[in-house]
Amino acid sequence: MRSSHSLWVTAKGTILSPRRDKLASAMKSESSNRRRTLPPHLVLRVDLGADLGLQRQIRQQLIDAIMGGAFAPGRRLPSSRQLARQLGVARNTVVLACEQLIAEGHLTARERSGLYVNDEIVKGLALAQRVVNPSSDDASGLDWSARIKAPAAVAAGWRCPPDWQKFPFPFVEGRFDRSLYPIVEWREATRLALGVRQVHEWSTDTGDADDPKLVQEICGKVLPRRGIKARPDQVLLTGGAQEALHLVTELLVERGTRVGVEEPGNVAMLQLLKRRGALLSHLSVDENGLIAGSDLDDCEILYVTPSHQRPTAATLSMPRRAELLGEARTRDSVIIEDDFECETNYLDDAYPALRSLPGGERVIYVADLSRALAPGLRLGFIVASPEIVAEARALRALTSRQPPLSVQRTAALFFSLGHYDKTMLRLGRIFRERMIALRDALNHYLPQSIAIAPVRGGTTFWVRGPEGLDARDLARSSETRGVLIEPVSHYYASAAAPANVFRMSVTGIQATKIRQGVATLAELIREMSAGKWLDPRKSKWLGPRELRKLIPGATFLYKTVYGEPCTIELQRNGQMIGRAGYANEDHDTGRWWIEDGLWCRQWQNWAYGEVSKYRTRIEGDRIQWFNAQGRLIDSAIFVRAGQAPAKVVSG
Amino acid sequence: MRSSHSLWVTAKGTILSPRRDKLASAMKSESSNRRRTLPPHLVLRVDLGADLGLQRQIRQQLIDAIMGGAFAPGRRLPSSRQLARQLGVARNTVVLACEQLIAEGHLTARERSGLYVNDEIVKGLALAQRVVNPSSDDASGLDWSARIKAPAAVAAGWRCPPDWQKFPFPFVEGRFDRSLYPIVEWREATRLALGVRQVHEWSTDTGDADDPKLVQEICGKVLPRRGIKARPDQVLLTGGAQEALHLVTELLVERGTRVGVEEPGNVAMLQLLKRRGALLSHLSVDENGLIAGSDLDDCEILYVTPSHQRPTAATLSMPRRAELLGEARTRDSVIIEDDFECETNYLDDAYPALRSLPGGERVIYVADLSRALAPGLRLGFIVASPEIVAEARALRALTSRQPPLSVQRTAALFFSLGHYDKTMLRLGRIFRERMIALRDALNHYLPQSIAIAPVRGGTTFWVRGPEGLDARDLARSSETRGVLIEPVSHYYASAAAPANVFRMSVTGIQATKIRQGVATLAELIREMSAGKWLDPRKSKWLGPRELRKLIPGATFLYKTVYGEPCTIELQRNGQMIGRAGYANEDHDTGRWWIEDGLWCRQWQNWAYGEVSKYRTRIEGDRIQWFNAQGRLIDSAIFVRAGQAPAKVVSG
Repeated sequence: MRSSHSLWVTAKGTILSPRRDKLASAMKSESSNRRRTLPPHLVLRVDLGADLGLQRQIRQQLIDAIMGGAFAPGRRLPSSRQLARQLGVARNTVVLACEQLIAEGHLTARERSGLYVNDEIVKGLALAQRVVNPSSDDASGLDWSARIKAPAAVAAGWRCPPDWQKFPFPFVEGRFDRSLYPIVEWREATRLALGVRQVHEWSTDTGDADDPKLVQEICGKVLPRRGIKARPDQVLLTGGAQEALHLVTELLVERGTRVGVEEPGNVAMLQLLKRRGALLSHLSVDENGLIAGSDLDDCEILYVTPSHQRPTAATLSMPRRAELLGEARTRDSVIIEDDFECETNYLDDAYPALRSLPGGERVIYVADLSRALAPGLRLGFIVASPEIVAEARALRALTSRQPPLSVQRTAALFFSLGHYDKTMLRLGRIFRERMIALRDALNHYLPQSIAIAPVRGGTTFWVRGPEGLDARDLARSSETRGVLIEPVSHYYASAAAPANVFRMSVTGIQATKIRQGVATLAELIREMSAGKWLDPRKSKWLGPRELRKLIPGATFLYKTVYGEPCTIELQRNGQMIGRAGYANEDHDTGRWWIEDGLWCRQWQNWAYGEVSKYRTRIEGDRIQWFNAQGRLIDSAIFVRAGQAPAKVVSG
Repeated sequence: MRSSHSLWVTAKGTILSPRRDKLASAMKSESSNRRRTLPPHLVLRVDLGADLGLQRQIRQQLIDAIMGGAFAPGRRLPSSRQLARQLGVARNTVVLACEQLIAEGHLTARERSGLYVNDEIVKGLALAQRVVNPSSDDASGLDWSARIKAPAAVAAGWRCPPDWQKFPFPFVEGRFDRSLYPIVEWREATRLALGVRQVHEWSTDTGDADDPKLVQEICGKVLPRRGIKARPDQVLLTGGAQEALHLVTELLVERGTRVGVEEPGNVAMLQLLKRRGALLSHLSVDENGLIAGSDLDDCEILYVTPSHQRPTAATLSMPRRAELLGEARTRDSVIIEDDFECETNYLDDAYPALRSLPGGERVIYVADLSRALAPGLRLGFIVASPEIVAEARALRALTSRQPPLSVQRTAALFFSLGHYDKTMLRLGRIFRERMIALRDALNHYLPQSIAIAPVRGGTTFWVRGPEGLDARDLARSSETRGVLIEPVSHYYASAAAPANVFRMSVTGIQATKIRQGVATLAELIREMSAGKWLDPRKSKWLGPRELRKLIPGATFLYKTVYGEPCTIELQRNGQMIGRAGYANEDHDTGRWWIEDGLWCRQWQNWAYGEVSKYRTRIEGDRIQWFNAQGRLIDSAIFVRAGQAPAKVVSG
């Protein structure tokens, strides 16, 4: 019987296989015509706790079934009584959902017969069934990587774990604490933006123009806080600051253009500049921001982050600002001012933007509005001369078009109703409290460790650990104790990155948790400085014989530096298979061997395909591997051939 | 008296200068302290007919006044009674608005004293006043155009007038008829996307991932209609098809890469390819779409628009599809399939996408969702091999980031509630009706003129006028009779553009108006073919003496080819000043003279700075100018020196 395959899910969310006896009796009472209308595999679910009402959930589920082809053309749907009984909801709820589906054209009702799928709405779907050879990339045999002329993907130096919100102490920057989101205010603005008149304004194809209301709000409410006066033809909206930087570099940089950048600096901007073939001059940064000295060479363009330097968070001092503008004038250079985190200038009056100072007419100003409006909204803007704005607008028309006008209008209303100012005020208070808590905790647990603190607002400290500490090791180890910090070496273009420096930020962690997080981190630093750095001569290493007994056929379970689970199978034939990621999406093969009492391995692609040789040690159910200097490189749950792991936990 | 400067705007929207006597008596009854609280210039407006409620409008107005610095720190605001009286609204409305402003931190209430601006919220604004030298681009003297390495702005061949909706017969393509927008459904989806749980999902910084719910809807509901089966790792969301094309060309094209493009073809894509330095092979198109013949040369990449060829609207036939895929396989080329207007395949079952056919694994599929979701929303996507999607994702992270996740989630809900299918069904019916009306009208009034009609859906006809007709002249003249059509020469890279061809589209015009629009156009074509092409030998031209009497000091008022107003002043000293655009944003200077009975002119920049010589004629209040062959080039309202124009109308 076909219907026995059906799975019905109750209102409580548990999946039931319908009891045959009950269903059979229900079926018996129906005509044979009616019986045929039950699709062979139908899974309907409602969730009483969900955001969406029951009626809407039923609608969604039925539409999925219709569009997924669950109901063959000409077949009648189950009766509303049947649906209601199986879902455990009132019949009226089902009736209302079905009535709406009829009104909308998904279903048709035939007099004295029942509900049917509207043939017209599923007509196009026949195509999917007709296609003989659905394209399968897996079997294509095409070497796509050889066809990619300008690869964009680069090995990320450090990546925040995607589940960072589950860690108790996430001192990671720019991660959005959703408890801070002004949801009620955004809802109000959204509702208003959907008024008939408003929709008529923003749904029109306006060519390449932005919403004049939003431009007006930016000129009137945002820019005055930065000291900037701008006319509408000097402003262009973008999908965040990153897109603004993309447009500006596309216009002003070609192969061989010399650009001065901060060292350490904004990694994404460096990637953009490299794609354009720019020659880079790396300019030093200290606690007063960029040092505008003789290194400027013949830079045509200077890229700076004056409000809070990326990544050190240093604020460019007023004398340095004047000096920089003077140097730019002398050399006839253009300045790109990335006003990163300008929205968090709360501790005192902010310094005015470079764009607003004498000589500011050679500045192209770029800012982001995502701090107030949540990253999911993606709005930023450029302020520059009308010529640059006109060119950037033409380029934007080719590359991405303007940010959605629906979002622009919603943001305009959000601003005009005062929600932006209010939110900035609230965020300012909250971040200030958190920054003070972090400062105090660092001064208590890790005295003298704050190397650079932003002097005007900001949300990040540049922290220096003890000499000899490797911040990458620390970050990896602290993650296992729930503390996320960010190492800094990937911000450096040169090899001069200080190994013992890391960043701690407050955008994602509540003030009450900060002290404990810092205490945990400090304890780990002490442990690492004291015990974990094993003396190669004293340790009880695994010897060649032990290695040959333990390793062949074993499996290592651990976490990558990106916090993703990783499995390595060491096959007896010397082959090695690695799988990483939550869905094993990343994999590689390689070989392993034993040589001079060291465990050696080489991946095809991972770890740059280089040969690595490790001393190893067993502690409990874990294997640890160390480099020649005795530094712990990593550790993993160790499963010997034929065994099952006792318990899989993160490494 | 300061307060006499105040302007108050009544509830009806008319601006009143307050009557001194009334205001003076109101002031007299208040304390001197209270008097000081009236800002010198305060304009408050409410509009009873507006979308926003009165209370919200008062809030907006007060916030603008506060943030604009209208209330000095420490000064009390006008009393609610005063505000209410002046605005002509109930006092309670004002009180409620002010209460909310207090709750939000814009105002503070002091016991027994009144309302004051919250110092904290205006603190940052002090900056704007402190800045000594607000940057003025106008005085910078910087030559920005010399610094732009890769200009994006190009002379547009034809531009739709921005006020196209005011024309009775706008046969222009891709312009969104806002009466078709599914506003109620979009509102529902938006409201749901703002539920607490939904916001928590989309407001999180997800790195470079798209909303998995939207990807799932695209795989489940949109792609099956095109015959395409795709996994989530084969799909990438973009801000419309244009951004998708940008990402793909950035990845696959470098200087010297040979790309086959359709001729005529998509202008914006050609611009992208030229920016990358591609070598272009222009491939012919007929009523069955691209001809995949020997012209393919050694093209590494083929860019095609199979559903409805841009701009001819031809549908690529099934045999041609197979042939094209075969050629691509033979040459090991990659195909970029721009599935333009795939959403309007309503006349019959659509042809399956190239991506879904055998060999489709070498196809990168690009589509836009703006037809259903309104252009203001900007969503499109790529379907390709996981390698390409991963690279495009990395590039997107550098150039623009993903489309706003708030919009993505709203779209996902819009799809899941069945609104997409329903809207497509409705649009399909409407466009079908309009296309039939246009076909019938063309066949009646301009028989044999349809050169190419889309055979599966589509919204545009490729129309051929009589031999000798110049479609650009026709478009300019028809605009003055309210009919907008699109000439096609700008779609051609070569000089082979047929002069007498134009496009007529139905996306912006209602079915009931189509017949009259076509009749008007046909009448104009007959007139142009018959009378307006003056025989140079027979006409009563202005002679040298008349020209010398009439032209010096005269002004011409007319419209540019872009439909924008334009004024030319012909000064007595032989100088000429031109201003174009709604705000005179475009201007140029030049010289004029009289030579051999011809009026001659040369602009600095306009008209390529070339010398032009015209025969001229006066008809009523208009001057007409003709080329040497006697073809009417343009006409203008003619204002003689010292006269005022009788009435300014479009030329």
